[in-house]
Amino acid sequence: MNTFGKAFRITTFGESHGKAIGVTIDGCPAGVQFDLEEIQNELDRRKPGQSKITTQRKEADSVDVLSGVFEGVTTGTPIGLLIWNQDQRSKDYSHIKDVFRPSHADYTYHAKYGNRDYRGGGRSSARETAARVAGGAVAKQFLNSLGIKFNAYVSEVGDIKVSDDYTTLDFAEVEKNIVRCPDAEKAEAMIELIDQVRKDRDTIGGIVSCVISGVPAGLGEPVFDRLNAELGKAMLSINACKGFEYGSGFAGTKLRGSTHNDAFYADDAGKIRTKTNLSGGIQGGISNGEDIYFRTAFKPVATIMVDQDSIDKDGNEATVSGKGRHDPCVVPRAVPIVEAMSALTIADMVIRAKGNRLDQILDK
Amino acid sequence: MNTFGKAFRITTFGESHGKAIGVTIDGCPAGVQFDLEEIQNELDRRKPGQSKITTQRKEADSVDVLSGVFEGVTTGTPIGLLIWNQDQRSKDYSHIKDVFRPSHADYTYHAKYGNRDYRGGGRSSARETAARVAGGAVAKQFLNSLGIKFNAYVSEVGDIKVSDDYTTLDFAEVEKNIVRCPDAEKAEAMIELIDQVRKDRDTIGGIVSCVISGVPAGLGEPVFDRLNAELGKAMLSINACKGFEYGSGFAGTKLRGSTHNDAFYADDAGKIRTKTNLSGGIQGGISNGEDIYFRTAFKPVATIMVDQDSIDKDGNEATVSGKGRHDPCVVPRAVPIVEAMSALTIADMVIRAKGNRLDQILDK
Amino acid sequence: MNTFGKAFRITTFGESHGKAIGVTIDGCPAGVQFDLEEIQNELDRRKPGQSKITTQRKEADSVDVLSGVFEGVTTGTPIGLLIWNQDQRSKDYSHIKDVFRPSHADYTYHAKYGNRDYRGGGRSSARETAARVAGGAVAKQFLNSLGIKFNAYVSEVGDIKVSDDYTTLDFAEVEKNIVRCPDAEKAEAMIELIDQVRKDRDTIGGIVSCVISGVPAGLGEPVFDRLNAELGKAMLSINACKGFEYGSGFAGTKLRGSTHNDAFYADDAGKIRTKTNLSGGIQGGISNGEDIYFRTAFKPVATIMVDQDSIDKDGNEATVSGKGRHDPCVVPRAVPIVEAMSALTIADMVIRAKGNRLDQILDK
Amino acid sequence: MNTFGKAFRITTFGESHGKAIGVTIDGCPAGVQFDLEEIQNELDRRKPGQSKITTQRKEADSVDVLSGVFEGVTTGTPIGLLIWNQDQRSKDYSHIKDVFRPSHADYTYHAKYGNRDYRGGGRSSARETAARVAGGAVAKQFLNSLGIKFNAYVSEVGDIKVSDDYTTLDFAEVEKNIVRCPDAEKAEAMIELIDQVRKDRDTIGGIVSCVISGVPAGLGEPVFDRLNAELGKAMLSINACKGFEYGSGFAGTKLRGSTHNDAFYADDAGKIRTKTNLSGGIQGGISNGEDIYFRTAFKPVATIMVDQDSIDKDGNEATVSGKGRHDPCVVPRAVPIVEAMSALTIADMVIRAKGNRLDQILDK
Repeated sequence: MNTFGKAFRITTFGESHGKAIGVTIDGCPAGVQFDLEEIQNELDRRKPGQSKITTQRKEADSVDVLSGVFEGVTTGTPIGLLIWNQDQRSKDYSHIKDVFRPSHADYTYHAKYGNRDYRGGGRSSARETAARVAGGAVAKQFLNSLGIKFNAYVSEVGDIKVSDDYTTLDFAEVEKNIVRCPDAEKAEAMIELIDQVRKDRDTIGGIVSCVISGVPAGLGEPVFDRLNAELGKAMLSINACKGFEYGSGFAGTKLRGSTHNDAFYADDAGKIRTKTNLSGGIQGGISNGEDIYFRTAFKPVATIMVDQDSIDKDGNEATVSGKGRHDPCVVPRAVPIVEAMSALTIADMVIRAKGNRLDQILDK
Repeated sequence: MNTFGKAFRITTFGESHGKAIGVTIDGCPAGVQFDLEEIQNELDRRKPGQSKITTQRKEADSVDVLSGVFEGVTTGTPIGLLIWNQDQRSKDYSHIKDVFRPSHADYTYHAKYGNRDYRGGGRSSARETAARVAGGAVAKQFLNSLGIKFNAYVSEVGDIKVSDDYTTLDFAEVEKNIVRCPDAEKAEAMIELIDQVRKDRDTIGGIVSCVISGVPAGLGEPVFDRLNAELGKAMLSINACKGFEYGSGFAGTKLRGSTHNDAFYADDAGKIRTKTNLSGGIQGGISNGEDIYFRTAFKPVATIMVDQDSIDKDGNEATVSGKGRHDPCVVPRAVPIVEAMSALTIADMVIRAKGNRLDQILDK
Repeated sequence: MNTFGKAFRITTFGESHGKAIGVTIDGCPAGVQFDLEEIQNELDRRKPGQSKITTQRKEADSVDVLSGVFEGVTTGTPIGLLIWNQDQRSKDYSHIKDVFRPSHADYTYHAKYGNRDYRGGGRSSARETAARVAGGAVAKQFLNSLGIKFNAYVSEVGDIKVSDDYTTLDFAEVEKNIVRCPDAEKAEAMIELIDQVRKDRDTIGGIVSCVISGVPAGLGEPVFDRLNAELGKAMLSINACKGFEYGSGFAGTKLRGSTHNDAFYADDAGKIRTKTNLSGGIQGGISNGEDIYFRTAFKPVATIMVDQDSIDKDGNEATVSGKGRHDPCVVPRAVPIVEAMSALTIADMVIRAKGNRLDQILDK
Repeated sequence: MNTFGKAFRITTFGESHGKAIGVTIDGCPAGVQFDLEEIQNELDRRKPGQSKITTQRKEADSVDVLSGVFEGVTTGTPIGLLIWNQDQRSKDYSHIKDVFRPSHADYTYHAKYGNRDYRGGGRSSARETAARVAGGAVAKQFLNSLGIKFNAYVSEVGDIKVSDDYTTLDFAEVEKNIVRCPDAEKAEAMIELIDQVRKDRDTIGGIVSCVISGVPAGLGEPVFDRLNAELGKAMLSINACKGFEYGSGFAGTKLRGSTHNDAFYADDAGKIRTKTNLSGGIQGGISNGEDIYFRTAFKPVATIMVDQDSIDKDGNEATVSGKGRHDPCVVPRAVPIVEAMSALTIADMVIRAKGNRLDQILDK
């Protein structure tokens, strides 16, 4: 459904071409400093029309705060955020009213709901993720006050990839180029490739990696609500996401245990650490205090600017051709979405975990 | 926590060396034919000591039905299943009472809970998955009555892999070899590799793929409870699982949209189908009626038979060495677990979409 | 938290003096005819300033539809409804910034959250119930298509009460008088009493009864989510509600089983019915097809127009006196709220039992 | 369904005449001293055959601990508790295989599930509450470590009632008489009445009141999960419970606000208190630190020892007569059940609340 999280949760609504989209943030602790500018900044990182390699469609995506904040601080009551839709152009979409676009959700929504808002994909449009970014920005503000930081970045576009060792990357680079890649040289190549794909009226996929630092040990709720399982669900709930791996991931399956195990040691401060981090900061479904590291796969955008064969809802053959303005590659705009869903997942786990240890409860 | 699913749900309990493990299945429709032998058969596929390439530890894993079934049929009330623990050998584990085994959950459970049952990993042991398999076997019986079938198999061990095109594989082969690989030749090589790894007192990882057939279009609850997101969470909640991808997965990120899109067509019966299935049977988070196809990555087992450096809970250096009897490779036994978690996920989605009474579900 | 329901659910936000209040309705089946006028009509029944026996505060409470409806029909996606706040008069409330008003939530919100929006009670204000009424109005539209009807009414104000036998009452009378009592004569007396109480600058409590007809047998999810338990929670979640009883309720405890049991019979159509209905339409936590009947107790409004002793947040003595415009008796405006929460509860149970697609629900 | 609670939760299973009933307690903090004798003691207060005014049926109700406890302390993992069924006498029940007993759940279970375990009411039997008492006993042990205490007692049987002012009652009396009434004289009269009713082969209802002391201010999760709403749901989920009221309850509706309001004051220790407690310890859905006080109505047991007219599942007329051994009045055995459900509700709220305030999280 449209609620994510159990203790720190968001509920979203809104279609691509409806009046507005919105998010209600419930369970955010009282007393968090609320920085609206910071939320708008996150929305700007996601919004369309931000560069030549994204869709040229324009949306201001300016956010309205309707509740839950008083005198600049959260009150512990639900925070209502609203984003009005501006650029709708419904006429652009009339041509796909009854046709199922290949690898879009047109057919499955038709099969599930019987009727649908076909304008721009309606609820299945990635426009919905703007509400997630707004909610995630609030989660970030809560978590930043705990010293937890999020660094997502584009690590692959097509065949171009950055180093697998994230410790060699400079996250300060990410916002310095339009593809959000921490390697300036690779960024250039990625932008060139995406631009070529766009000229070919085609699209291409890529990978967004994410590093979360400052996460205390002890987050995650085994056996089912493991931190990695909740992060995986969060990422796979994002449009176009086809895969999730953390730590050594799929490549780790080829290793032997003697190579894969992360040896423990106590640092000078006596803090328990691991010498390597193939575990990606999570062991037994619980954070171990190391950086959390994972990768998410995004397929090429389904809307391409060339004619494709398809059928309509009565099974008649039809031709579909992308109209309007679309992204040749989704990953640059997916970076803030990955961070938002990560922040929402960690925030939920913090609230759930800080309440479930007796000695800590008694401390209060 | 220890409940999985919203409408068709299981709640499990039990430690590796406690008295027993168990599962309560809640939300199973009334009127499902209950086949205890079939449940036991699934448990036997998971149980230790089944072949030379699994741990030699012995557990009968025979299951007791305590409630929810009357005159051979489910009643719609919770089904309580119990599995007594037999082979405990606590003495084997005293040596790791205060030591954190590398890449195990010893440290994270210590960090989260303060105290833990250290015997055999306690709750973090893969023994817990037996309860999932028992619950999943009930979900399978419900879903089989709807014509939904599950085929998981070992597709990779180390560098040995079967064809990426699952339609060329013979699932009838899977139970004919001890590694549960549908390619007899590759199975031989995998067994040899695992046996060599075992002799090296080491371990190795692998990949379990899964094909679910007969799933009707329309299952999945966007925007957050997408079918792929729930499947991903289910798989990532399994011990040692490091990654999940469906359809084209990570490889699909390298393709262009024009190649990646699945074209629709109407078959002779007028049913809407896709010519290719890079979507893996799921579009927009909802099943489209094609086979559901996904892959899950399992890391090498953390327990190896050689000495490893580690520390104890006070930060003192210590040496850990695997004792007892452990799996050199987990994937052969992971196959029924992957099927069980798949069945539980699909069953939950069926009930959420179609309600909780079998005769009415069958009517549709 | 701020979400009610599991399968058909609402999430609300908004403070008494914030910018707006809103509700997101999730899980409403696709294909329900959406009648905005009907929703506005329900809000008008709840809104302030509607008669001389309610607060004279003015709020238009006009509702905006932001999503989830397309071409006059629900799409199965979340329905976002927004109500802007107009009449705020924040200055009216500055005097209670640091003082805890007797029997209000000022102190408990302070104790729980540390900081609060003190203006008009903020989130603890009954203003929040407008969002429930909007959501409940959508649930009603869904349930009316199943033939389920809701009749709530004022059965007691102070010592004035209508007949305990609801079958003797004329529900058509309810909207014909400002106190919403089905007995015209009693209505007169109630109005007089409330008017006298208002002149005394005091307040008084009352009871709202509710009859739900057309509910099919089989709704309710034992053992914990019994229909009566969920209805009870729904009512007790309404501001000022102090009690809930269904069927024979508290009075039934004085009876003997031989008098209390409802005898079964088969009517001419062969439908299984009960001769009496002390069960209130619910047996074993599941609807039995008879009218569902329950009563809810509402305490006198805490805000009175006379001086009261209290303390401020530092423990200093202080005097509180009601300012602004308040309700001398809450029950006339509580009637639509009771109906809304009833509709939300029944809608949730219908979806849980029968699934989430209207045409399939109607098939049954 | 069969899970109660969100953060501290129990999941139960088991039919009256199945092999066993059980409960899984999930979310209990690690480090709670586990006293099995205390759990057994609670079960003994509920078990049948304990006195001449309860059913003479015998059940040992001895509890088995299967998991979640290590070296006498909880580990934070799920606690599995099992109670084997002994005294089944299935033959006693064959006569009601196809007949619907008046005011039992036979018909509604038939209508909902299509088939049912008719032996002794199957899942709808009050036997199920033994699992709740076992789970509640664990919640009590957790809460006792926080200084929270539960005192439930029989306040009314038929027309015999104790003082409405619970502060005048001596809770030490409760376990000194078989009806569990804190007023020795009234206890005598109640026992006499119940005994007379039993001789008449009839049954009678009553009221169980409950006082919870030591509850800190701040528990409860508005707007829907108010503490009073969750307590109400908990009580109404108990078999035969027809009503719930807290604080002034239904009687309070007759009062005026000037009489009903609880004035605040600061005690010598500077703690904020109220001079009266018509609020029942809960304001705005959140505990205010005063005693929590509520009353629950229980109908007369449906099984009476005289012939009653009814019908079978085909609509044919039939005669039903109570066989076996049943309770003439349920309230003496309901006392520990009310305490158990209260403890489960408060425990859930403690876990949920201790995690949702930023300054407290930062304190750790």
